[in-house]
Order: sequence, then C-alpha cells, then structure tokens
Amino acid sequence: MKTNPMESNPGPLLARINSPADIKQLDKKELNQLATELRNFILDVVSVHPGHLGSSLGVVELAIALHKVFNTPYDRLIWDVGHQAYPHKILTGRRDVFHTNRQFKGISGFPSRQESEYDAFGTGHASTSISAALGMAVASGLKGEKNRHHIAVIGDGAMTGGMAIEGLNNAGASKANILIILNDNGIAIDKNAGAIKDYLAGMLAGKKITEAIARQAEKSTKRNNVKEAFLRSSNLFEAFQFQYFGPVDGNDLSLLIDLLEKIKKLDGPKILHIITTKGKGFEQAEKKQTLFHAPGLFDRKTGALIAKDPKNRVTYQEVYGKTLLELAEADEKILAITPAMPSGSALGFMMKKFPERVFDVGIAEQHAVTFSAGLAAEGFTPFCTIYSTFLQRAYDQVIHDVALQKLPVIFGIDRAGLVGADGPTHHGVFDLAVLNSIPNMTIAAPMNEVELRNLMFTASRFKTGPFAIRYPRGYGFMKADEWQQPFVKLPLGKGQQLIDGEDVAIISLGQPGNYALEARRQLGQDNIFPAVYDLRFLKPIDEELLHNIFHRFSKIISIEDGVLRGGLASTLVTFANRHHYSVEIKSIGIADQFIPHGSKSDLYQLCGMDVEGIKRVVRKMMGNR
Amino acid sequence: MKTNPMESNPGPLLARINSPADIKQLDKKELNQLATELRNFILDVVSVHPGHLGSSLGVVELAIALHKVFNTPYDRLIWDVGHQAYPHKILTGRRDVFHTNRQFKGISGFPSRQESEYDAFGTGHASTSISAALGMAVASGLKGEKNRHHIAVIGDGAMTGGMAIEGLNNAGASKANILIILNDNGIAIDKNAGAIKDYLAGMLAGKKITEAIARQAEKSTKRNNVKEAFLRSSNLFEAFQFQYFGPVDGNDLSLLIDLLEKIKKLDGPKILHIITTKGKGFEQAEKKQTLFHAPGLFDRKTGALIAKDPKNRVTYQEVYGKTLLELAEADEKILAITPAMPSGSALGFMMKKFPERVFDVGIAEQHAVTFSAGLAAEGFTPFCTIYSTFLQRAYDQVIHDVALQKLPVIFGIDRAGLVGADGPTHHGVFDLAVLNSIPNMTIAAPMNEVELRNLMFTASRFKTGPFAIRYPRGYGFMKADEWQQPFVKLPLGKGQQLIDGEDVAIISLGQPGNYALEARRQLGQDNIFPAVYDLRFLKPIDEELLHNIFHRFSKIISIEDGVLRGGLASTLVTFANRHHYSVEIKSIGIADQFIPHGSKSDLYQLCGMDVEGIKRVVRKMMGNR
Repeated sequence: MKTNPMESNPGPLLARINSPADIKQLDKKELNQLATELRNFILDVVSVHPGHLGSSLGVVELAIALHKVFNTPYDRLIWDVGHQAYPHKILTGRRDVFHTNRQFKGISGFPSRQESEYDAFGTGHASTSISAALGMAVASGLKGEKNRHHIAVIGDGAMTGGMAIEGLNNAGASKANILIILNDNGIAIDKNAGAIKDYLAGMLAGKKITEAIARQAEKSTKRNNVKEAFLRSSNLFEAFQFQYFGPVDGNDLSLLIDLLEKIKKLDGPKILHIITTKGKGFEQAEKKQTLFHAPGLFDRKTGALIAKDPKNRVTYQEVYGKTLLELAEADEKILAITPAMPSGSALGFMMKKFPERVFDVGIAEQHAVTFSAGLAAEGFTPFCTIYSTFLQRAYDQVIHDVALQKLPVIFGIDRAGLVGADGPTHHGVFDLAVLNSIPNMTIAAPMNEVELRNLMFTASRFKTGPFAIRYPRGYGFMKADEWQQPFVKLPLGKGQQLIDGEDVAIISLGQPGNYALEARRQLGQDNIFPAVYDLRFLKPIDEELLHNIFHRFSKIISIEDGVLRGGLASTLVTFANRHHYSVEIKSIGIADQFIPHGSKSDLYQLCGMDVEGIKRVVRKMMGNR
Repeated sequence: MKTNPMESNPGPLLARINSPADIKQLDKKELNQLATELRNFILDVVSVHPGHLGSSLGVVELAIALHKVFNTPYDRLIWDVGHQAYPHKILTGRRDVFHTNRQFKGISGFPSRQESEYDAFGTGHASTSISAALGMAVASGLKGEKNRHHIAVIGDGAMTGGMAIEGLNNAGASKANILIILNDNGIAIDKNAGAIKDYLAGMLAGKKITEAIARQAEKSTKRNNVKEAFLRSSNLFEAFQFQYFGPVDGNDLSLLIDLLEKIKKLDGPKILHIITTKGKGFEQAEKKQTLFHAPGLFDRKTGALIAKDPKNRVTYQEVYGKTLLELAEADEKILAITPAMPSGSALGFMMKKFPERVFDVGIAEQHAVTFSAGLAAEGFTPFCTIYSTFLQRAYDQVIHDVALQKLPVIFGIDRAGLVGADGPTHHGVFDLAVLNSIPNMTIAAPMNEVELRNLMFTASRFKTGPFAIRYPRGYGFMKADEWQQPFVKLPLGKGQQLIDGEDVAIISLGQPGNYALEARRQLGQDNIFPAVYDLRFLKPIDEELLHNIFHRFSKIISIEDGVLRGGLASTLVTFANRHHYSVEIKSIGIADQFIPHGSKSDLYQLCGMDVEGIKRVVRKMMGNR
C-alpha cells in the first residue's frame, strides 16, 4: 500500500508541516508557496490513490488560513460533508499516511474523531456541521471558555439541507460563538438546485467576482473595521440574525487570513461567505467539476481519466438510469426524483430526454420523499431515487407520508449494502431492517441487472402502496449486451429456486445470491451441494417457498447485504418459530457493529459475506466436511 | 359515543353547511355569523370530547375563507400539523360526526385521505405540507391543469422544521402554482424558539398589529392591485423567491376573502403571512395558550379544566422532569434538549431552576440530536428528550452523528408505545425496532416510575455511548408518594425475574410487564402460574437470564409495546435459534399494520396487548386450560 515516491513527495515547505504550529511560523509568501505544494501533493496522491478531489482542491487556501489563524484543536473546526477535508488532514499530521486514504486499515476519507484530535466531529452526510458546532459553542459558553472558537465549514449545497437551516435558526437566536464559513462553489456533486442557490448567485450578479473581490481586498487591508470593509448585506442570513461577511474570494489566501483575524475578534454568530472554485488549480478538474468530484485514477499531467472499468460490464446505476428512461418513454406518468444525486444515480439519461420529468430537489431527502408522495397522490408514478445511506434522513417521511397513506411511491434505493471506500458513514446497511418494520411496504432486491429492470417495470405497475427496490453500488454480473431484455412483470412476493441441492439450503436476498451460487459451484468440487434460493422480496416474503424449503431442509443459511438485526435473518427465524420448524439457521450479513472503509472485497471478506465466507459456513454446518 | 345535544348543536347557519358549496352561497355578514357559530360549535364539542383546541380556534376564519374562495377538493388544501383542521373538517361534511373526534372508530383528529376527499394529504408531524403541496402543484403543471391551486397552511412553529425550508427552497425555484399560508400565532405548543421566530416578530415590531392591519385592510378593499396594497417586503421569503404578502390579520374574515381572491389570480409560488391568535374567541384559551392547546375536558363557560386525573398518580413525564432536575442539581454537566416540547416532556421543572441548561431548539429533531452530539463531544451529559414518533425524524443523526462516534447522548424517548387518541401518525412504536439495528446503542425501558428514575441516573453515569430510555405517555403504576426514592444504579443489560412460575415464561420489556403481572395474578385463580421476567434492557440483552429461562421453559411469551418486526420478539427468536433452544415463542406486540386512534385501552385490546390478551395467549399455549 505504498505510494509511488516519484509522484507524491511533498514539496520542501509541506514536508516541514507536521502540525498547525508549523504553519503559524510561515510568512505570507511562504504560505502561498505552501498552498501550491499542498495542492500538488493532493493531486499527486489522489491521481494514484483515488478519492474526492475537487472539493479538497477548492479549500486548500481556506484550510491553511484556518489553521494559521485559529488555535486548533482547542478551537473546534468541523468540515461539513467531510470529503473536503484532505488539506486539513494533510496539515494536521497525516501527510505521511495520506496515501492510505480510503483504503482498508488506512485513514478515512472523512474527518474522524477516532483518527485525530483535529477532527472535532465526524462528518460524511451533509448539513450536520452547524448543529455540531453550535453544540460545542454552547458547551464552551457553559464552561466559561469565552475565547474558544467553533467553526463550521459548509458548502452551498449542504446549506440547502433542512438540518443546516434548523441549526442556523437555533444558532442565530443564540449568543454562541460560532463562525460558519459558507464555502460557495455553486456546485455539490452536481450543479446545485433551488432558491438558495439562485439567491447566492444573485448576490454576485452583475459583476466579475474576482475583480470585485480583489478591490474589496485592497480596501480591507487598509482598514481596521472589518464590518465597514466587508459587511455586504445579506437579507437571508441577516434574517437568521447572523453577522454576515462576504462574498469574498476564498482562494485568496492573504485575504482570508486578514479577514479571519478580524472576524475572530467579534462575538456571537457570524457567517463568512467565500467564493471558491471546485477543482481549483487543476484545469481539467475546474472544467469538469462533476467528473472530478471523485474521478478515480487519472493522469496527473493531462487529467485524462484512467478507466479501470471491467470490460463488457455496466453498473447497476446505468441499468437503472437507462431502464427508467425506457419506462418513462412508454408511460408519461413516470417521474424521477433525486436529492442532489442525478449523476451518481444515472438519472442523466432521463433528464436529457425529459428534463421536465426529473426533479433534482437539492440535498433534501426529507422533502424528496414527501414531494414524491404529493406526486403519487395525484396519480403519477414517482421513482424517488436515493442512496440507502441518505434515505436514513427520510425514514419518518417514508412512514408518515408514504406508507401510512399507501401512496405508490417507488423507492430506487441506490448503493444498498456495503459501499466500500466511503466507509461507515455511507454503508447502505440499515434500509432492509428499517423498512421491514414499516407496514404496507413492498421491499425487493434484484440479483442482477435484468431483475433490476424487471422489478422497476413491476413496481411501475403497482399502485397500492410504496415499493422499494434496493440495489448495490457498481458493477453487476451480466455482460453489457445481456441486460437489456424485454420487460417481464415479476410476481409480487415470489422468490425462486436458483439451484436444487441437498443437506443445506442457502436463502439469499438480491445481489449476494451470486456469491452463493459461486460458493455452491466451488463446493460442488468437494461433493457438497447446497440448494440455493433467492427470495427477491423481503416483504411480502414468499411463505410458500419458505414452507417448501423448511419442510425439506433442517439446515438453513441466510445471506443479506445489510444488518442482521431486523432484516432477512430475523424474518426467517421468526417464520421458523411461528410455524414450529425445528431448523438450524445460520445468518450471514452485517453483525451488530459499524463496518470500516476499504474495498468492497476487503469488507465482504471482513464480514464473512464473500464466497469463502459462505463456503465456510456451509462446511461448518455440515460438520466440517 | 353520543354527544350531549344540549351542548353541541350547531348554530342555524352552520347546520346548513354540508359542503363548501354551501359556504359559497353566503354573504359577508352571514360568513361572519358562520365563523361565530363554528367557533362555538368547536368549543361545545371539544369541551366534552377532548381534542386540540387552540390552533383550531385560531383558524376558523381562514378555513371559511379558503373554502369560500377556492374550489376544494379540486384545489388541494393541506393543513400542516393537522390538529388545526377542525374547522375544515366541520365545514367539509363532518359536522355531524365531529363529536366522535379522536375516539376509537370515530373520525381522526388529523386530516386523513381515507376519511375525506377534502383532506388532500394526511398530516400529523410538522413541516410536511409544503413538500406535499409542491408535489401536487408540479403534478398539476404536468397535467396542464393550470387553474388548479395548491395551498399549504403552515404555522410559524412548523416553518422552523428543516423539511419546510427544504420545500421552500425547492418551491421557490419552481414555477409551481403553490400558495403557502404562514399562520403566524407566535406559538407552537409552547412558545416558539429561534431566529425565524424573532424575524417574524421583528416584522411586526414597533406597531400595534391589529391597528396596522386594520388600516391595511381599508386600503386593500379600495385597491385592485394586491401587490401594491399588501406587498410588504420580506427579506427572508423573498430570498426564497416567493411573492410575499402580509402580515395581515388572519382573524379578519372579510380581509382574508378579499386578499385570497386577489392572490389567487397570481401565478407561481406565493406566501401569505397571516397573524392569528391561538385560542381566538375563548378568553381562557387566548390567555393560557399552552394549556389550551389540548386542554382535555373543560367547563364551556368558565374555561376551568375538569381534571380526570387519577388521584395519587403522577405521569411518567412528571417523573422524568422532576428526576432530571434532581440529577441536574447534583451534576452541572447535565443538560436537557427538546425540539419544541418543553411542556409535553415536563422540562419546565429544570427550565425554571436552570434556564441556561435547557435548550428548546424549535421543531427541529435532526438538529436536536446532532446539537446534543456536539454537547456530548465536549464532555456534557445531554438528555435529548424527544417523543418516539418524532425521533423518527432523526434516525440518521442517531446513526451517523451519535452511535457511530459512540457519543454519550442520553435519549429520553417520550410517549413510546401506543399513544392513544393521536393515532397512527403519533404512535411511538418503531423506536425499539430501529434503534435495535444500530450498533453501539444501549436501549432500556422502565417498568415503572422508580425504574425510570434509576435508568436516568444510570444513564447519566454511562459515558461510552448513547443510552436510550423509552417510556410511555401518561400515568404509571405507583402512588404519587412512592416514586421519589433514592437513586440506585442499575446493572447494565440486566433483567429481572418478577415472579417465578411454571409451564410458561412471560418475557416483557418495560411497561407491559405490569400487565403481565396482572395477567399472572388473574390466571393464578385458575391455577395457572406463568413465570414473569422483565428484561429492562433490549440492548445489551441479558443473555444469562435468557439462558436460564430458555433452559427451564419451552413455552415463552414475549411482550413489547412496539412493532414485533425487529424488536424484542425478533431478538428472542434469534437468540433461541442461535443457541439451539427448541422453544415455542409467542409474541405479543404490534403486528405489521398501522394502528388507528382510540383510547389506549381500546388499542391495547385491539392489539391483544392488554391483560385479557396476555391471558388468552397463556391459556392457548397451555392447551386452553
């Protein structure tokens, strides 16, 4: 797991920065040099050890300025949606391990309290930073630590999340010593959507930002009164009773330092609005901001992406996106909704052809679900497409607005199961257990690309309640020319026997069925032939099939790509108990712990969910044959 | 379930209103008379059939005006936090069944799509109306129904919920034909908190509202240009790109009708800011707004509350609130957080003595949890006190911000289990199942008042992760002078045998243990003696006790006040399966369905969770002895 020394040596200044104390020694010229070296180092490392690039390039100057001006870790610094924290990590003692970023047992791609005292709060999901920083600021107030600062760096995208506004509402009315830095780059992963975006853009309208900012900077250095120099009125933020400063060029290091020194002296809730460029300093990343949000491997010089994609494979996302377009072409009632993930969830195909039927509602999962419920109430067929981990934000809306009213919202639950390098904040492992406890839900998981298509088709014809389809991140198992087959309506709540066998029955749900089949193939070489079944639906569950299986087999293995508590495993043992089957059931899935980051194969192995893990359990059940 | 005819005859005009078409026939004088009759009718009925009073009294004129001006149900009308919908219900065909409000098999206390085509969207939790109305407005746009209106009536309290702002952000940038009526009465259940409240109050500062509004009304009736007459600038809402109108007197019926007629003609997103008085027209309710939010029985003439409280009993809420004060007196690190429910959760005791240590963060559950996490990260001991049903709003924050980081936030989960008359939107039945699936959680449920105290004490000393204590709404089982005993630290994850027995073991969690004991007492008269155990902790579960029980008994009954899927029932069958116990387990709890409204005893009976239900299952298990 060593990095290529040629490509990722830090520059001479960066090599000396082991903590923020070292930054404080540098003069302005050196600080600018440090910014250049830091940016180059990030590019060197991330080009060969993939991670989130664009956001981090944009805040190089900000990270330096914050650690120069503030007394971290005593002062609390929280990076919202932590993937913008690479410069911060490198400056706070993690330069030499940065090449292990996002790798199994390496450092996390997000801030982590476990990893460093400089990471004041773990962040991964958007819009949490203001609430956490306010909690800390109030705590300092209670402790009488009046000179401690609490800083939340939050993007303009995350600022549209309701939780951020809840925090703003509470913070504005407090006297707490909190500084919000609104890092406005006009883009989250995709272009931002909504009124706040328009509002922020409007604040800059009619002038060339950089020039205006440069002039403002001139003024500021000549004046002592920061309010006079910088207090441009912001209706929105002043309505929340924040002292507002900005907008200023957030990639101008000297300006940032001067300004932060001055703002630091002011008490109460403050907001500094900075304008940065996502991908700053790397031409390709500035030009193609969505692509370079997390570009994978790329050529450090040209910016050309280095595809590591398996040939002849498509991702589940692409299958979903293209299938949705097909369905939408045939049925004008079909709509798509995404909370700020149109490219991640491959809604671009439909967006291109039917822009008026795809709704990017911003980083706003709660709204996305209830907005979909409103559409469904009027007879439309909304595909509310949300990553499993982000659907956690909207469980109440699923219960209260959709399931209780039996509204036919289709949930396309993207990135279900272990997601890999993004780690514990992002694994989509709770959806099955939680949705399983909600009445009126239909819950399905495809085993492959064709099933995903057919489940989508089936769901689009289902009008009596919500229908969730959870599918994994990344590549499936079929060839690129195999998946696009004519639609077949699947029987509701019906599973299937994948292969008959003896002694042991493996019951899987969705994607893991493929590993079960491979395990069975390999075990066959040792004359072990477990039967393999795929339930396809967790709810309603195929009781007829289960009765068949439980009559024939006394040894059962369940496999699911989610937490065991409350999901398939619980459902099967409950079924066995209710119907008095005296069977032994072993469950494969996520035990009661958070799973770290790493490659999907590392993590499947860690959880015993890979082919070897399945084989091990089968053998053990059969008495270690 | 008949109402007293003396006290709840509608007036002569109201008696003729069977649908909004009838309202449209009335002239202005008659409409004012209708308002008076409607208000009296609500008072007459709610004084003897308890329900939500204050909010509904405040919107009598608004409800009449909306149904007069708009073409409901074709035009979509959504009442946020639906307890303000009584006037609407009475005007839309439910006058003669209004006395069954909130009663078992009667009409719902909230809007319900099932109940009436006039209830465009079910509402119970706050802040959902904008999202739903926007969905409907977008749907109408897609269908080309350009003259259909979509109206969300939302209080100033609900407007602080993040979801409402997410909706605002999305709606403002759309061209959708949506009208938001901001019903600003300065209070939710308790006084509102936060910057938005201050902002709204500031809009009215420096003048007597009613007079100013009266003058404005004068102007409006003389002018045709509504914008000219009413467009007072609102920085906040205009930042969201809404056309803003107001503030105007929302209890002035003629003014409202005129204004709505004019606003109706404008396209795009609009917001009308009305000022109403909660409890309007009933002196006691205007004066004591929190008390008269849902006052229970009261004297129609004097407004005196008619206590139906059991003597010598205290509520769990009171025990919680007083105990929290005791703990806070002894430990300055103890803080309390509530999302807008200080009186409901009885935080007043602590608030009075330590106002700086109790935080009402507004209707903002997501923020409440992560704010608490920030406090915990700084070494404080926050009691984050949230109704079970509202904690659903913050599951992601529990997972991502608290449990993953093992922060010692104590969750006081109020109104856990079936809550009674508020019905399916408010039953607190999902918390056990969902929290059970989250790693690092400790989950406990007290069986009585003393246990609640001791669990709170125990949790306050627990520093290695989140600790959830779920307790029911209302009265417990102990006498008022029994519960305040010296604190005892309870062993973590340990249950208890309540009474030994034979043949069958009943395993309960928390409050239902009392019913189990009573069932046992009654069964004893027939020489049936089940053993009864209380686990106290769902997680970590007392495996030692379970082994003892499962060794001795082959017939087990589990009882929990929550959904069976994923909760105690699932946990016990999983335990039995893992350890190869061949036992028969019957589970009592909430089956996979939404439970309607009604008295708690009606609902316990419905779910088979009452004493009779328990006895029935024991007898059945013993072969109908």
